[in-house]
Amino acid sequence: MATSPKQLTGDAAAIQEFLDKFDTFLIDCDGVLWSGDHVFPNIPETIKFLQSKGKRTVFVTNNSTKSRAEYLTKFAAKGIPSSVDDVFGSAYSAAIYISRILALPAPKNKVFVLGEAGIEAELRSENVPFIGGTDPALRRDITEADFAGLADGSLLDDDVGVVLAGLDFHVNYLKLATAYQYLRRGATFLATNTDSTLPMNHTFFPGAGSVLVPLSNMIKRQPLALGKPSQAMMDAVEGKYHLDRARTCMIGDRLDTDILFGVEGKLGGTLAVLSGVNKQSDWEAEGAVARPSYYVNGLGDLLTAS
Amino acid sequence: MATSPKQLTGDAAAIQEFLDKFDTFLIDCDGVLWSGDHVFPNIPETIKFLQSKGKRTVFVTNNSTKSRAEYLTKFAAKGIPSSVDDVFGSAYSAAIYISRILALPAPKNKVFVLGEAGIEAELRSENVPFIGGTDPALRRDITEADFAGLADGSLLDDDVGVVLAGLDFHVNYLKLATAYQYLRRGATFLATNTDSTLPMNHTFFPGAGSVLVPLSNMIKRQPLALGKPSQAMMDAVEGKYHLDRARTCMIGDRLDTDILFGVEGKLGGTLAVLSGVNKQSDWEAEGAVARPSYYVNGLGDLLTAS
Repeated sequence: MATSPKQLTGDAAAIQEFLDKFDTFLIDCDGVLWSGDHVFPNIPETIKFLQSKGKRTVFVTNNSTKSRAEYLTKFAAKGIPSSVDDVFGSAYSAAIYISRILALPAPKNKVFVLGEAGIEAELRSENVPFIGGTDPALRRDITEADFAGLADGSLLDDDVGVVLAGLDFHVNYLKLATAYQYLRRGATFLATNTDSTLPMNHTFFPGAGSVLVPLSNMIKRQPLALGKPSQAMMDAVEGKYHLDRARTCMIGDRLDTDILFGVEGKLGGTLAVLSGVNKQSDWEAEGAVARPSYYVNGLGDLLTAS
Repeated sequence: MATSPKQLTGDAAAIQEFLDKFDTFLIDCDGVLWSGDHVFPNIPETIKFLQSKGKRTVFVTNNSTKSRAEYLTKFAAKGIPSSVDDVFGSAYSAAIYISRILALPAPKNKVFVLGEAGIEAELRSENVPFIGGTDPALRRDITEADFAGLADGSLLDDDVGVVLAGLDFHVNYLKLATAYQYLRRGATFLATNTDSTLPMNHTFFPGAGSVLVPLSNMIKRQPLALGKPSQAMMDAVEGKYHLDRARTCMIGDRLDTDILFGVEGKLGGTLAVLSGVNKQSDWEAEGAVARPSYYVNGLGDLLTAS
């Protein structure tokens, strides 16, 4: 029987005990640090406080449209201290997985990308060769010549061993047909994440999972998702930071991605923040997908006088 | 216990017995008559042969990109004898369903089309108002203004009561995001068919079911499909041709659409052809979706000396 999640808000002794248990904090961004452009109270101060206590802060996000460098620009604008090495997005996770874990022998390690510039930037950072992505040559209607060339293989690159799919605002029939042919020839099927929707402007738009679902529908197999809660992402995080899982804590607002990610990764602990998607009643419910070990109303509640 | 499917290829006596059992043949097109522009051996001769024996040949297709008139042009070009009344497509089936069965009161009966000109032509033939479809205004990248206008509803038409999705070679993020907003507001979700793939040039391309699956993935409900194996289509076919189901045979290459359509429609028989998607091992497999009563290597095998 798991013990009940411990409330830390307003309990300085419990916060101290919590901080002493961990060296590394993996921190989700949306719903924890901010919602859209609105930064939650005391966030920059809390991150600085953790760092001043010698803790490593790593920002772990499923958003694949931004590269780490672009994320860093947002962190800087919001006054949150971080370096490019502190940001771990699902696009970067995918790049690391491809280069260091999948490690296909060149030249058969080329990636066909269904996605935006954020994915391309991270593949480049790991020296992974790729095609597709933002290539303007694919941003057009499919032609008879394409049908023929995809069918006979003359338009396909024999070196493609991986299809990596993520959110693509420029998805079209030609890209889907091309990606499918690579999958059909045996390419490994990876996804940055499989979120069905993208919350935006107070409604929803197609998410990465909905952009790539035509491929899984055709090929009858699911991609390996490299975002939370996939343990492939945890392996990649561990590989990069050489972290001691027992002394690492995952902080996030979603039970089905963040908290599950930490629980299945057998981390020393998980901290739920109530500033985002899930509420206390969600983990108290029968059949809750995951239960945190600690919770606070907002991440800023960790900021104590000490 | 169902009897084993009977192989007819090369067995003139068995073919004669088969022909004697039926007055009407419902014949799938893609994978049976042709693959893309490639017509299979002896197809025109076999259709003529069936007609010369007094059989009615009705071409029942899930392909919604062509109207019946356009199909006729293709039949003529390939030397296959038929009239517009011999063609029953899923776009026509959907138009009939919307105008005569759904019968929403005007002006709230407008249809947002995710699909090609074939759907538009059939909606026009039933006087159903529609938007979307081949409208060039939607064949472009999504913009910030689109995100805002779709979110606040200013870009949406309040009269849209139905989203009809089919194969769209020009599918893009803007169309998917627009269709999703109509579904979110309660529009009826219809599909011409849900074939995951489109057989063409001896391989497969994304089918209607894969073009529209992002919508079902986002909205968490399935469309009512008006193509095979939907029995709504069988009812429409029966109503139009006044056929005797016991003396009708469905001929097709796919177990999950054609053969299932005939089996669930309680037709007198089903004939699988091995020139398309499914193979003998598919219906011999444990848990096969449907099993034909007869099979041939290709439809041309029915052509005998008699």
